[in-house]
Amino acid sequence: MIITIQCKDQLGLVADISRILSQNQLNIISMREHVDKAECRFFMRLEVDGYSDEILLEKQLLKILPPDSEIQVNPAPEKKIVVMVTKEYHCLADILIRNSFGTLGASILCVIGNHDLLKGICERFDIPFFLVPYANGKEWAEAETINRITSCQPDYIVLAKFMRVLSPEFIARFRDKIINIHHSFLPAFAGANPYKQAFERGVKLIGATAHFVTNELDEGPIIAQQIVPVNHSFTALDMVRSGKEIETAVLAKAMRLVFDDRVFVVHNKTVVFEH
Amino acid sequence: MIITIQCKDQLGLVADISRILSQNQLNIISMREHVDKAECRFFMRLEVDGYSDEILLEKQLLKILPPDSEIQVNPAPEKKIVVMVTKEYHCLADILIRNSFGTLGASILCVIGNHDLLKGICERFDIPFFLVPYANGKEWAEAETINRITSCQPDYIVLAKFMRVLSPEFIARFRDKIINIHHSFLPAFAGANPYKQAFERGVKLIGATAHFVTNELDEGPIIAQQIVPVNHSFTALDMVRSGKEIETAVLAKAMRLVFDDRVFVVHNKTVVFEH
Amino acid sequence: MIITIQCKDQLGLVADISRILSQNQLNIISMREHVDKAECRFFMRLEVDGYSDEILLEKQLLKILPPDSEIQVNPAPEKKIVVMVTKEYHCLADILIRNSFGTLGASILCVIGNHDLLKGICERFDIPFFLVPYANGKEWAEAETINRITSCQPDYIVLAKFMRVLSPEFIARFRDKIINIHHSFLPAFAGANPYKQAFERGVKLIGATAHFVTNELDEGPIIAQQIVPVNHSFTALDMVRSGKEIETAVLAKAMRLVFDDRVFVVHNKTVVFEH
Amino acid sequence: MIITIQCKDQLGLVADISRILSQNQLNIISMREHVDKAECRFFMRLEVDGYSDEILLEKQLLKILPPDSEIQVNPAPEKKIVVMVTKEYHCLADILIRNSFGTLGASILCVIGNHDLLKGICERFDIPFFLVPYANGKEWAEAETINRITSCQPDYIVLAKFMRVLSPEFIARFRDKIINIHHSFLPAFAGANPYKQAFERGVKLIGATAHFVTNELDEGPIIAQQIVPVNHSFTALDMVRSGKEIETAVLAKAMRLVFDDRVFVVHNKTVVFEH
Repeated sequence: MIITIQCKDQLGLVADISRILSQNQLNIISMREHVDKAECRFFMRLEVDGYSDEILLEKQLLKILPPDSEIQVNPAPEKKIVVMVTKEYHCLADILIRNSFGTLGASILCVIGNHDLLKGICERFDIPFFLVPYANGKEWAEAETINRITSCQPDYIVLAKFMRVLSPEFIARFRDKIINIHHSFLPAFAGANPYKQAFERGVKLIGATAHFVTNELDEGPIIAQQIVPVNHSFTALDMVRSGKEIETAVLAKAMRLVFDDRVFVVHNKTVVFEH
Repeated sequence: MIITIQCKDQLGLVADISRILSQNQLNIISMREHVDKAECRFFMRLEVDGYSDEILLEKQLLKILPPDSEIQVNPAPEKKIVVMVTKEYHCLADILIRNSFGTLGASILCVIGNHDLLKGICERFDIPFFLVPYANGKEWAEAETINRITSCQPDYIVLAKFMRVLSPEFIARFRDKIINIHHSFLPAFAGANPYKQAFERGVKLIGATAHFVTNELDEGPIIAQQIVPVNHSFTALDMVRSGKEIETAVLAKAMRLVFDDRVFVVHNKTVVFEH
Repeated sequence: MIITIQCKDQLGLVADISRILSQNQLNIISMREHVDKAECRFFMRLEVDGYSDEILLEKQLLKILPPDSEIQVNPAPEKKIVVMVTKEYHCLADILIRNSFGTLGASILCVIGNHDLLKGICERFDIPFFLVPYANGKEWAEAETINRITSCQPDYIVLAKFMRVLSPEFIARFRDKIINIHHSFLPAFAGANPYKQAFERGVKLIGATAHFVTNELDEGPIIAQQIVPVNHSFTALDMVRSGKEIETAVLAKAMRLVFDDRVFVVHNKTVVFEH
Repeated sequence: MIITIQCKDQLGLVADISRILSQNQLNIISMREHVDKAECRFFMRLEVDGYSDEILLEKQLLKILPPDSEIQVNPAPEKKIVVMVTKEYHCLADILIRNSFGTLGASILCVIGNHDLLKGICERFDIPFFLVPYANGKEWAEAETINRITSCQPDYIVLAKFMRVLSPEFIARFRDKIINIHHSFLPAFAGANPYKQAFERGVKLIGATAHFVTNELDEGPIIAQQIVPVNHSFTALDMVRSGKEIETAVLAKAMRLVFDDRVFVVHNKTVVFEH
């Protein structure tokens, strides 16, 4: 069983929680905790051996925890996701492959694209692809997208190189549920055309950042980042090519962490209990 | 306060330990635990806020833990070390600098060298240097070294590029207390001249490994490893030069982890509670 | 145009080569050269602007170079490959995706598997899959495989997690043409089950190595290597999962380098002119 | 011999240069070249075997190269440097150590500090330390610093954690000669207190950047960059501690590259011929 808890920090939380587990004959395999001092907030992720009624266990835990606590006992082991794309294939293809072989930690409900270039690859994997073009205006497109999403109730929305900026209204509906991959090591090169910016600045490393989407463009809580070295012989296009590799890898890592219930959001930051 | 515990694994350990802490009004800042299933062994490192009598707390913990438990309540915040060297300066100099500015997490009692090349740098930092040459035989040299060490009672012995193989008798006296830096990513290129081996094999990365010393040459529990990329344009000497940088960094990291009480040994492996 | 040259080293090679280029009005965009002193061998890769008759240029170059020279003027920009697999999908799927979107730098002629588990994914991408089981013996299987390969004349054979050891006869037929991905940072953990070996040794990093296949198991010239950090909380299975990511990335990088004519073999080593 | 060349790009440069070398019986060990297409500028670094009169060779090369060419035949193998510091010891100590053991590729003429905290470590290594406080105003301090520098004629000025912004006048006097280490992966977190900025942004990696100093704060040509992973458990102070390690390493690498005549400046970028 996996248990995640977040609540106001107070003395004795670990003792109280572990006592409940012990009383339920649940043996702790892995316990990770963190206290955000600035926010006075406590975060815990537990893997336990043994079995207990989930609803009962949650009730017992709620009784000993502060009033505002958020507990998940055995969150869905396989999340459901909607993927949004534009034209680039690399992140989507990686997700389709993992989905197809059962190693994504999630199942894809459908793919929504504002261009139809990636319809073919979705069809190869028997995943529904919906074209929602922006030709009729952003408002119409977002309304249509929200319809698609709400009709299939995903746990997360993954922006796998979706190159449109979402409206605050859209984002507000799916708070802490939208995962984006940005093609730079944020906060460097936020906004459009980061590889061109990187080329012009003459940096010696380029990167990628997976983050939850908030209203502030490219300012959401960062889940994972990685970089790759470049040098003077790289054109902006070479950087794009190298960057795609790291984009795919970073988004895959961020999804694994989120779908594995290892990521908590606290304001504009994340707590990530990695291996 | 810092508390480290290792013992046989059993149900309810975390509950019992955290109850004792809670009863002592000690608030957990950071709790890291690991269970080695193969060995059925439990490891924990705690940082707690508040103060409690150390001897009393240790007694209370021992009462609730299995008979074979090893507990340390507030282990020495600054370890004492003896450094052993041969001719290469880079690791020793790094240790002397950190020692001099109080950021080593340890204090150097003395340096023992089987050559006198590094006497000068020790003198610059007012650290006693003892020359123990091997000209009179290994037996004599080790006896002399043991005399020096036992007379100053260090917590750890750091082999900062000490290029002699220690005898089983020597090693037995300082079990899990001798930290070595080996100039390859073990288990690749164990033994002599790893950079020459690496050059001849044509590897694309070279590395360094910090480990506790056991009787099996270069087979002791690994504390930290890191690598650096190389290519066809590197001569064996270029690899040596690049390697020294990573050797220094890896040994520094391993020392920090050990002196910070983050490393536990379980057979030929380590449990390392990194940040 | 791309030109690659390897020959015995001698004085004035660069001057002679670049004079020929200059006489042909070819402007050097990128020139990389290396001399292996032990072998007294010269390697060069050129990218030039402009156009010249390829056969004529080759003749002019041959005239000024030592007798044993190997020259390629505009080697095939898109290589043809046969992929061999067993059961694991990750490397194959990555190759299929890149092939499908035209970014592999090669085109897949067919996939040969000694199990039929990966037939489905090949069919999704309309790539012929041939099952060549080892039930009838290795001799039969290799003969059958050689038939398949010789009938389609690939430039390279990519072992994308093909888990059988090839015979010396097989290897001899495709010298410097078989690319393998081994799931460890060679020479550590050669042979079977490297992740189990890595787990038992307690290493703090695991890796992957792409190399050309020779008769010595896992001893062929290394093209690319990379590592990923692990720690005590990784089971052998966790290492396998992390390792697959790096295997995929390293094989992809090695293929890109080879297909881009950036890799030369000199005895058991490679010269790799990376960006 | 080492030869560096930069000039306007034109057809036949490599042929002309290598012909001159060949006529002088100089065998090319390593030749690296780059053309910056946007600037139409050619860069080359050569290592050659054999000996030729340096002035004569330079004359011969100048004759065949475009008028604006910059050639260095056998630039000083050991550069002379002045180091400027404030309070932090880590970069300075690393430089002093390398200087002391003859592996810096440069010799330190003196150290100038705007505080006296690092006087002691300089004295340990018998390196002159000059205190130039800013209490009397920046203008006075810079004038005094310039006096010190001009009186000893260094090849480079290394800002080893010098925490004052230099005036445009100061910088103009030492164009492309001032190497700075900035404690972030630029362009992220330029300006003051980058670790605090990094902590507040919740990044998952922090970095360091070595660059030449120009009038635009933290906007000069980047020589080298590196990063180190961090996570939610790092306080801003932990980031500072981790960052210092990488600052030291990146500055050391940048100095090695510059002192080894491997770095060319082209506008706000560098061409770096690494191994």
